[in-house]
Amino acid sequence: MELPLLPLLAVLASAFLAGKLAERIGYPSVLGELMAGIVLGPPLLGLLTSHPALDVLAQLGILLMMLYVGMEIDPSELGRASKGGILAALGGFITPFVLAYWVVTSWGGSTMEGLFVGMAAGVTSLATKSRILVDLKLLDTRIAHVMMAGALIADTLSLVIFAGLISVANPEDGGSLWLVAGKVVLFFGGTWAAGTYLLPRFAGALQRMGTAGVFPVVILVLLLFSEAAHLAGAHGILGAFIAGMFLRENVIGHTVSRDIMTWVRRGAVGFLAPVFFVTAGFQVDLAVLVDSTMLVVIVVGVATVGKILGTALFYLPTGYGWREGLVLGAGMNGRGAVEIIIAQIGLAAGIISQEMFSVLVVMAIATTATVPVLLKLGVTWLRARGELVTARESRTGAIIIGASPLNRLLGKVLADSMPVTLIDTREDHCAAAREAGLVAVQGSALEDVTLTEAGAGKAAYLLAHTGNPGIDALVGRLARQVFSIPHVHLLFDASRMKSSAHQNAKAHVLGETSFTGSFALDEWDRRIMEGSATVCEAPVPTRADGTVLKDELPAGLLAVRRGRDVLPIHTHFKYHPEDILIVLDS
Amino acid sequence: MELPLLPLLAVLASAFLAGKLAERIGYPSVLGELMAGIVLGPPLLGLLTSHPALDVLAQLGILLMMLYVGMEIDPSELGRASKGGILAALGGFITPFVLAYWVVTSWGGSTMEGLFVGMAAGVTSLATKSRILVDLKLLDTRIAHVMMAGALIADTLSLVIFAGLISVANPEDGGSLWLVAGKVVLFFGGTWAAGTYLLPRFAGALQRMGTAGVFPVVILVLLLFSEAAHLAGAHGILGAFIAGMFLRENVIGHTVSRDIMTWVRRGAVGFLAPVFFVTAGFQVDLAVLVDSTMLVVIVVGVATVGKILGTALFYLPTGYGWREGLVLGAGMNGRGAVEIIIAQIGLAAGIISQEMFSVLVVMAIATTATVPVLLKLGVTWLRARGELVTARESRTGAIIIGASPLNRLLGKVLADSMPVTLIDTREDHCAAAREAGLVAVQGSALEDVTLTEAGAGKAAYLLAHTGNPGIDALVGRLARQVFSIPHVHLLFDASRMKSSAHQNAKAHVLGETSFTGSFALDEWDRRIMEGSATVCEAPVPTRADGTVLKDELPAGLLAVRRGRDVLPIHTHFKYHPEDILIVLDS
Repeated sequence: MELPLLPLLAVLASAFLAGKLAERIGYPSVLGELMAGIVLGPPLLGLLTSHPALDVLAQLGILLMMLYVGMEIDPSELGRASKGGILAALGGFITPFVLAYWVVTSWGGSTMEGLFVGMAAGVTSLATKSRILVDLKLLDTRIAHVMMAGALIADTLSLVIFAGLISVANPEDGGSLWLVAGKVVLFFGGTWAAGTYLLPRFAGALQRMGTAGVFPVVILVLLLFSEAAHLAGAHGILGAFIAGMFLRENVIGHTVSRDIMTWVRRGAVGFLAPVFFVTAGFQVDLAVLVDSTMLVVIVVGVATVGKILGTALFYLPTGYGWREGLVLGAGMNGRGAVEIIIAQIGLAAGIISQEMFSVLVVMAIATTATVPVLLKLGVTWLRARGELVTARESRTGAIIIGASPLNRLLGKVLADSMPVTLIDTREDHCAAAREAGLVAVQGSALEDVTLTEAGAGKAAYLLAHTGNPGIDALVGRLARQVFSIPHVHLLFDASRMKSSAHQNAKAHVLGETSFTGSFALDEWDRRIMEGSATVCEAPVPTRADGTVLKDELPAGLLAVRRGRDVLPIHTHFKYHPEDILIVLDS
Repeated sequence: MELPLLPLLAVLASAFLAGKLAERIGYPSVLGELMAGIVLGPPLLGLLTSHPALDVLAQLGILLMMLYVGMEIDPSELGRASKGGILAALGGFITPFVLAYWVVTSWGGSTMEGLFVGMAAGVTSLATKSRILVDLKLLDTRIAHVMMAGALIADTLSLVIFAGLISVANPEDGGSLWLVAGKVVLFFGGTWAAGTYLLPRFAGALQRMGTAGVFPVVILVLLLFSEAAHLAGAHGILGAFIAGMFLRENVIGHTVSRDIMTWVRRGAVGFLAPVFFVTAGFQVDLAVLVDSTMLVVIVVGVATVGKILGTALFYLPTGYGWREGLVLGAGMNGRGAVEIIIAQIGLAAGIISQEMFSVLVVMAIATTATVPVLLKLGVTWLRARGELVTARESRTGAIIIGASPLNRLLGKVLADSMPVTLIDTREDHCAAAREAGLVAVQGSALEDVTLTEAGAGKAAYLLAHTGNPGIDALVGRLARQVFSIPHVHLLFDASRMKSSAHQNAKAHVLGETSFTGSFALDEWDRRIMEGSATVCEAPVPTRADGTVLKDELPAGLLAVRRGRDVLPIHTHFKYHPEDILIVLDS
């Protein structure tokens, strides 16, 4: 069969333009792609048309997409999820599931259709979340943490139920439920064993192969797991998702994992998945909106109300209050990509009617559209009431790059309240750090093995203080991109680099400037070595009304003691009047 | 249409295993993939089978492959190609073309078939070359340069002729040659104008979008150019190739270009193109080898003899001798990927018979298989005769990273014979360099804009001498990977880094150690500033028989004067007895 160039070009060009447009007005690009399919495709204008070859590319696109979704989920995090996350996920899944099932079966739908629509109503799309959280500056709040964990559990849960449903619906097995269940259990057991015991055995060999060598292996594992899911009577996307969950850093290494995730993301989000979403839009029957307006309104309504109220209700036992529960529910109401994938598979398998498929597409669009609006309102409400709680960060400890005298001294200060690891290429510096009772790793912080050894995967702070602006910037970028360390501080030494260059590097790294501004590293190193610098403590300079006078902070300010914590500071640090300053004095 | 998971998995698994096997014994992986298709597919064992959906993926694979081949070709280099390269390309194309045409038409083939087989015989596959050149350590020899330029010209030439042929063969136009010619000319003119004038206008906007933003644009341009080629009556691969030629650094920036080439290479070489090569093997009719053994032997014979003798004959006017011409011809005898792509399109278009297609596949395998063997023999022969000439490097000049006193002094020394540019983040160092009459760029050498500004695209040497081993290694890697600078030297300062770490970095960068070994940068900087170090010249220490005594080279050796050239040295530098050493003395 020929690759249809013109239809593919038309579909992709529409997808990219509509996706950009959606992003511009604050929505995930998948909404734009669906709309492009509906408006430009057969349902309305008929400018775009389907083609069997496009289906092939679309299916490859969703396999890659599910691989990517899986790669973003760390199975060990599922086990560590907070009570709040589990409750929110369960409430937000079960309530809309039950309500939607009840509506569909009351409306005359089959049990199977009811279960399928229920599942679609229960989905919470992970991919559409993180962008909004960044835009609303929520990443370090508790609701963001609960929401991410909740979406993760809800997605995994709905995919497992999906596997069961699609297997039962599979006509090949002649309806023997034991056989169906046995195959599904075998599939989950087999993939779990392969992912947990078999793949990690090849970790060493894989990590030596580099990205070019590992890439084809990832593609093969993806197809193998997908085919296994297919054989088990479930759908290939389930295998793709599970393959992604197991092809992680621990198996293929940090850098290779990032490279491959980048490839998969581009191949899926930037190329093939849009083909899927546009052609999914093709299958919408707009007459449904007119003929069954009631059904649409009711299904979308119960999905939304069920999601929000269900989340809030199940969240009550956490004691974090019904308001936080409502905002959580509003944030988890987006269904986006995963729901469309499930709905399209249901349609293709003949489980749901085209009418119901159209309702589900409308539900995906409508509910995803509510998220930015409702979440923003909710967050503003919580913030105004002072109830927007910062997350108890699961990451702790600081990594300091550079083990010069100043850094060793800073390390000692911080080590009072958190684990501190220093990294330096120089043996003498590392030895001196160890003599001072600190943990030091000798090696280049630019290599991810060194950072891994220093515990970067669990660190809350990375202080890049080598004094070499280039190195500091690069390590900072690595810490951000590969290890997702939330707080990255770069040293700024005016004698070594221009302020504009530092600002540039900082912006690039999304980091902060260490200390209170320019800091002459060599000078302080020399003074410390000479013994002319001592550490002392001082109160925060405040006005009579208690506001902090940032301009009057002492030079040589290293860190702040707040209660039992000692915190590294930066130029945008928010001081409390009761903080105690730890100052290097000479 | 369903994506056929099991057939795709089987094809890819065979492709990867056979490809790895081929590489292990020194051949390009495409040979293994073809063989897998022939042996495991319908022609022999019948374990693998075709599927229409695989064709779709295979076609997407060759579009990506041709995009990649195009991205590797710099059109401005085509214009600057040496006389030798042009002659070798012409001779190596025309001679097998004419001979194969004559054989096929004498054998009863149509004119069109003759032209098509001629073209396939004339092809020289670029992708299969570079690996062998590296393995045989030929990269800096004249034959390697001529071969690369020749392959480039021959590939471009054969694709242009291919466009013409396939247009003429296109039944839609009813055979009006004027219409056909007009459309082809319009296509070349249109894409050339779009690539030369239109795309560069968006360079600024594209470079600000980053890789994630540019990637969909590249896919759209690829499809647009392919569809334009299709509309002009030629084949889409021609559009893909031309799109690649114009989507270069000057349009999308160095880093984005490298990122996208990496993506395309992985998507093509590591995923979809193998589907094409395996399924191409499916179409081979092994009966041909038995029934038309004579035809196979003659076609492969005239292609090989024509390529080697034709290249040598046309190369004579360069005055570099018939021996070098023969070795060149042997090196350019590989046809690999591009020939298979052309043959498969000829088969699909009904221009060549399945018998002839099978002959062409055998030709691709047989001729590519000769390359490593014949080239190795030829090179050994030339080397033994002392006729293996080092290329007159088209790159000149050195970039020194770091503008400390030692680097400024080294810069002055080298500037006697080549352009020298220093890069430093420190303003005072740059000012001092400029005062000394040197060219200095202030900025971070880790950003490709700085290296571009310093002329890294044309530099022969990059001396990473910041004294910071991490920075040096990273700049060296950037110089190699993004700017392909042939000589990268890293400073080794034993007081700052362990020898093993330096060796590691050097191996990673594929660079050399600057000077004669460990070099105490700070120490020499201090002496130079104090005025206690002076530059003097000395003869090379030699034994009575003229062999160089490397162990007796003086400390502080900076560079070597050889005739009118001044050359940077490294630990593996080959000294000549008549060289003059430039030494820093204190």
